[in-house]
Amino acid sequence: MATGEEARERGAESAEMVPSWREQLTVRAFVVSALLAVLFSVIVMKLSLTAGIIPSLNISAGLLGFFFARLWAAAEARLGLPRRPFTRQENTVIQTCVVAAYGIAFSGGFGSYMFAMSSRIAGQATEANDAMNIKDPSLGWMIGFLFLVCFVGLFALVPLRKVMIIDYGLSYPSGTATATLINGFHTPQGAKDAKEQVKTLGRYSLFSFLWGFFKWFYTAGDDCGFESFPSLGLEAYERKFYFSFSPIYVGVGMICPYIINVSILLGGILSWGLMWPLIEKKKGSWYPATAKGSDLHGLQGYKVFISIAMILGDGFYNFVKVSLRMSTAFMAAARRKSTLPVSGSGDGPARSLDDDDLRRTEYFLRDQIPMGVALAGYVAVAAVSVGVVPKIFPQLKWYYILAVYGMAPVLAFCNAYGMGLTDWSLATTYGKLGIFVFGAWAGASHGGVIAGLAACGVMMTIVATAADLMQDFKTGYMTLASPRSMFISQVIGTAMGCVIGPCVFWLFYRAFDNVGLSGSDYPAPYAVVYRNMAIFGVQGFSSLPKHCLTLCCVVFAAAVVINLARDLAPEKVSRFMPVPMAMAIPFYLGSYFAIDMCVGSAILFVWERVDKAGADMFARSVASGLICGEGIWSMPQSVLALAKVQPPICMKFLSRSTNARVDAFIQTLSSKT
Amino acid sequence: MATGEEARERGAESAEMVPSWREQLTVRAFVVSALLAVLFSVIVMKLSLTAGIIPSLNISAGLLGFFFARLWAAAEARLGLPRRPFTRQENTVIQTCVVAAYGIAFSGGFGSYMFAMSSRIAGQATEANDAMNIKDPSLGWMIGFLFLVCFVGLFALVPLRKVMIIDYGLSYPSGTATATLINGFHTPQGAKDAKEQVKTLGRYSLFSFLWGFFKWFYTAGDDCGFESFPSLGLEAYERKFYFSFSPIYVGVGMICPYIINVSILLGGILSWGLMWPLIEKKKGSWYPATAKGSDLHGLQGYKVFISIAMILGDGFYNFVKVSLRMSTAFMAAARRKSTLPVSGSGDGPARSLDDDDLRRTEYFLRDQIPMGVALAGYVAVAAVSVGVVPKIFPQLKWYYILAVYGMAPVLAFCNAYGMGLTDWSLATTYGKLGIFVFGAWAGASHGGVIAGLAACGVMMTIVATAADLMQDFKTGYMTLASPRSMFISQVIGTAMGCVIGPCVFWLFYRAFDNVGLSGSDYPAPYAVVYRNMAIFGVQGFSSLPKHCLTLCCVVFAAAVVINLARDLAPEKVSRFMPVPMAMAIPFYLGSYFAIDMCVGSAILFVWERVDKAGADMFARSVASGLICGEGIWSMPQSVLALAKVQPPICMKFLSRSTNARVDAFIQTLSSKT
Repeated sequence: MATGEEARERGAESAEMVPSWREQLTVRAFVVSALLAVLFSVIVMKLSLTAGIIPSLNISAGLLGFFFARLWAAAEARLGLPRRPFTRQENTVIQTCVVAAYGIAFSGGFGSYMFAMSSRIAGQATEANDAMNIKDPSLGWMIGFLFLVCFVGLFALVPLRKVMIIDYGLSYPSGTATATLINGFHTPQGAKDAKEQVKTLGRYSLFSFLWGFFKWFYTAGDDCGFESFPSLGLEAYERKFYFSFSPIYVGVGMICPYIINVSILLGGILSWGLMWPLIEKKKGSWYPATAKGSDLHGLQGYKVFISIAMILGDGFYNFVKVSLRMSTAFMAAARRKSTLPVSGSGDGPARSLDDDDLRRTEYFLRDQIPMGVALAGYVAVAAVSVGVVPKIFPQLKWYYILAVYGMAPVLAFCNAYGMGLTDWSLATTYGKLGIFVFGAWAGASHGGVIAGLAACGVMMTIVATAADLMQDFKTGYMTLASPRSMFISQVIGTAMGCVIGPCVFWLFYRAFDNVGLSGSDYPAPYAVVYRNMAIFGVQGFSSLPKHCLTLCCVVFAAAVVINLARDLAPEKVSRFMPVPMAMAIPFYLGSYFAIDMCVGSAILFVWERVDKAGADMFARSVASGLICGEGIWSMPQSVLALAKVQPPICMKFLSRSTNARVDAFIQTLSSKT
Repeated sequence: MATGEEARERGAESAEMVPSWREQLTVRAFVVSALLAVLFSVIVMKLSLTAGIIPSLNISAGLLGFFFARLWAAAEARLGLPRRPFTRQENTVIQTCVVAAYGIAFSGGFGSYMFAMSSRIAGQATEANDAMNIKDPSLGWMIGFLFLVCFVGLFALVPLRKVMIIDYGLSYPSGTATATLINGFHTPQGAKDAKEQVKTLGRYSLFSFLWGFFKWFYTAGDDCGFESFPSLGLEAYERKFYFSFSPIYVGVGMICPYIINVSILLGGILSWGLMWPLIEKKKGSWYPATAKGSDLHGLQGYKVFISIAMILGDGFYNFVKVSLRMSTAFMAAARRKSTLPVSGSGDGPARSLDDDDLRRTEYFLRDQIPMGVALAGYVAVAAVSVGVVPKIFPQLKWYYILAVYGMAPVLAFCNAYGMGLTDWSLATTYGKLGIFVFGAWAGASHGGVIAGLAACGVMMTIVATAADLMQDFKTGYMTLASPRSMFISQVIGTAMGCVIGPCVFWLFYRAFDNVGLSGSDYPAPYAVVYRNMAIFGVQGFSSLPKHCLTLCCVVFAAAVVINLARDLAPEKVSRFMPVPMAMAIPFYLGSYFAIDMCVGSAILFVWERVDKAGADMFARSVASGLICGEGIWSMPQSVLALAKVQPPICMKFLSRSTNARVDAFIQTLSSKT
């Protein structure tokens, strides 16, 4: 560890002007943030409503935030306005605000619990689709609900930030990575690299956008266009194995670790290639032959519940694991706290002993957020929530909410601490806990499904925002940004997200009639999964088709065992073991996006072999570009759909025999006219 | 000019062992040649039967010849066989042999005069489709005919090679370029570059091949697959404006000069975008409303004859121009010959004064081909032809052939000389001359159409092979290859071509039922054009639809005027003027391949702007790779078609309204089953 003397010297060496916390909060920062928040909300929404897999977009947000703010600063200089330099603290403010805002597009549950309440999702199950258990989306109540619940998490953990960041020295890998990125940008070489990276990102964005636009022309009608391209043959297409020509998934595949992509593909092969065909053979014996499409008493039931079982198994294992590690690390840290006040390190991933640590600690402790503000904020928000949320969801009694808010600080702390150690947010797991606990408490006849889903939402947003906030404090700590500006930025970002998220969802929901329908372009897979979990929790196992429960138990156990094996096996073996959570996703959806993601993996793999330096420098930019481009295209696409502008051509795929008949039919059509 | 002293010194410096002419003719050279001859014959055949545009493939042949021969030499060394170095003379032998062999795939007229005799092409016109004027292709007579006529050109010019190469010092730009390439390969740096280029070629070949294979799966039925992709919209597709996703044309576009590609596109826009729609409005007035499809009394007649008029106009202008330049240059050279025996230069493109000239002259004059052999060969081949060709084509009397062979040496000299000056072979122009002269001589009732087309074949092969031979002599001169080995290689290559050409044609003809049919994948545009020229020549203008003759005259004149303007205008203006010959091609075919070629141009343009050195080094390799890959794919594709293996899927493009009806129809289909 560096001595105080050395550290001071270094501090003097790198003596940059750190602006005051007020100066860090600029108008341009929030305008840029709003812009990016919309962009990333659209991307996250599109991903939630299609495959349900959302990669970390923090790096993309960092890159684009840097780029736009620099552009703005350059424009100010060009216009002769007083020159205000673009500092890394301001950059951190943008990053925090954007991440907070688009985080709500995910934790708002538009692809999961919130949408699961709708009649469209309810219609796909035969149970609990009475009026008591349905609440259709509407812009008003969604925004209101989010405003009520999203700020609690922020106030809950503010008093603990010094303990977690400085005393326990939690590592927060993603937050640290973001800080490293931002610090890197604000050196001359870093700025040059960032410029190159942004250029690459822009180029691939443009390509991906134009490709999305081009594809659109050929999608007049169902099963038309490149997204229905049977690139591996018609039979594989029937089993949902095809490359869907979506740069967005190729990009996601480039960002996700190899093992995740391979796990998804493996899950797809296991389920659609093996399990479903086998179960299908039992048609008429295991389940009624009349059940079709999305009927949960048929094959669909197996798909949904086996998928849920695997997700729950994985969640259960990780919950136990993180809790155990957390409590041991926590106790060890608490014991050591008095002796090593500054650099104490938990048992978690070793904390890097940064030479700037003293200076960082100094800045981090300078701008305090008064304990009173945090406490008053928490109580005020909680009180309003307890009063108003039952107005939105009559099924969710006020005492349920009070109970949630009683537990919230503990759960929020657990999640923020776990994320600091492992980079893994368990927000959705806590949400699922909420579904089961409060759903069962309310009971089916009292609208337990809605109660469970709403409770899930409250839980999830609290723990997700709390963990995000703490991660941002870590980023701010490393970039010398004031915790006060971080907190305000997070609050503003959350407020933005509470408006932008529902609006973006509303855009998709109104623009495409088939959002949420199984087999459509926007199947919203998790909405179905969440609703069925809620039904499950309220009604028990009675509604499952034959042998489904057995299979679920096997899969649940398998998920635990695989996770255990991954953790116990030596690293060179475990890195080839699949991740159960990832395997579960294609169970329900099929593997088309897995093929796209594996193509992304393959591109990255080859690139890294051929040109390691180039891949390290640009792979993320290329991936982000591919994701952003098609994400941006979703906006004009939705607008076109809202304006009832329909694509002119259908690119159709027919088997040879069908084609011959269709050709004959078209002949008769044209001879008639 | 280098003095003799200097030149000798330099000769000593670069004192490589030049093998004797016998040593230059190795078995491996001819095995490699045969392999490449098949490959390039397939490519040329595919291009002749589709768009009719054939770029110069000499560089690709040079690259691949070098690569395979080196591979062979390396294999010999690996197997412990006596090491024989791969010399540049041997490389020249391969190059000569391959070019001679695949040249016949073009000059054999499988996409033009030979195929024009068939009943399938004849069926597309209402005139002269009686038995007298039809001769269907068959492997036997085609090979026989080619063997009879292809060797005459070789013997005709042998005695003149010293005069043309050394005394007149003709430049033969393509031959010189090939020699430069080969000389470059056989230096250490050149071999390294060549290796890189071959690697690039291989990579793009593989891509193009796999893409061709992938595309194949989606072509079950007419108007299916990527070649029917309405990439610019359905309306543009109706007018044949679309990108057809063919790497082969993208590659061709990268090799052809920009102005050629732009000219083709311009021609397409003028004809399909402007002229044909206007003429179509006169339906019922200018031509009978009942005429449809390929009826020459309808719109098709305008397309074919206006296209012919433009080709003839361009041919006429170039014939006059080359003849004029030739005669003046010839006379000037003849006047100067006695004073400057070695370095005398024509008025044509200035001859580069190479330092190795003396050494080259020495080697070039060392191995003579006895005058007697040439003369005896010519007389023997001519005599056999006169006796046997009328057996194949009874319509072509023996005295016609005698007349052709009387003129042949003069025509062959004209063409070889013109090509030496301008790099432009007028073989097809001489062929057209044959059509008109001998067609009219025979008359329609005596099978004038067949007589004209056969005479065209005889003319064309003679002048084409003569010019090729002289160009190869130039290459051989520059690479110190013996003229004797050049000649033998050319003879062997020609013999190969006489067998390979017809066989490859036969493969296509048997594999695809619709070769030669307008609107199919293999429309063989020039076959129709040639047949109609023959009908034209025999029957006169009586059969043309209304105003067609006027339009033809206008277009003919326009072709002459544009050419004149190109030649008279200053270079900075003229390089933006279109080439009439290129403009004429899409008149008949439509511009889909022009779009592909312009994409090739665009790629090259951007590449040259971004990375000039890389483009110079690799653009040709990429282009050749794209061409070769899809060319190679044609072979398995044909084999699949012959084996009646049909692609499984149809990728169909329907307008939205049609799609809705088709969907309803498919619904009824599936409900029935």
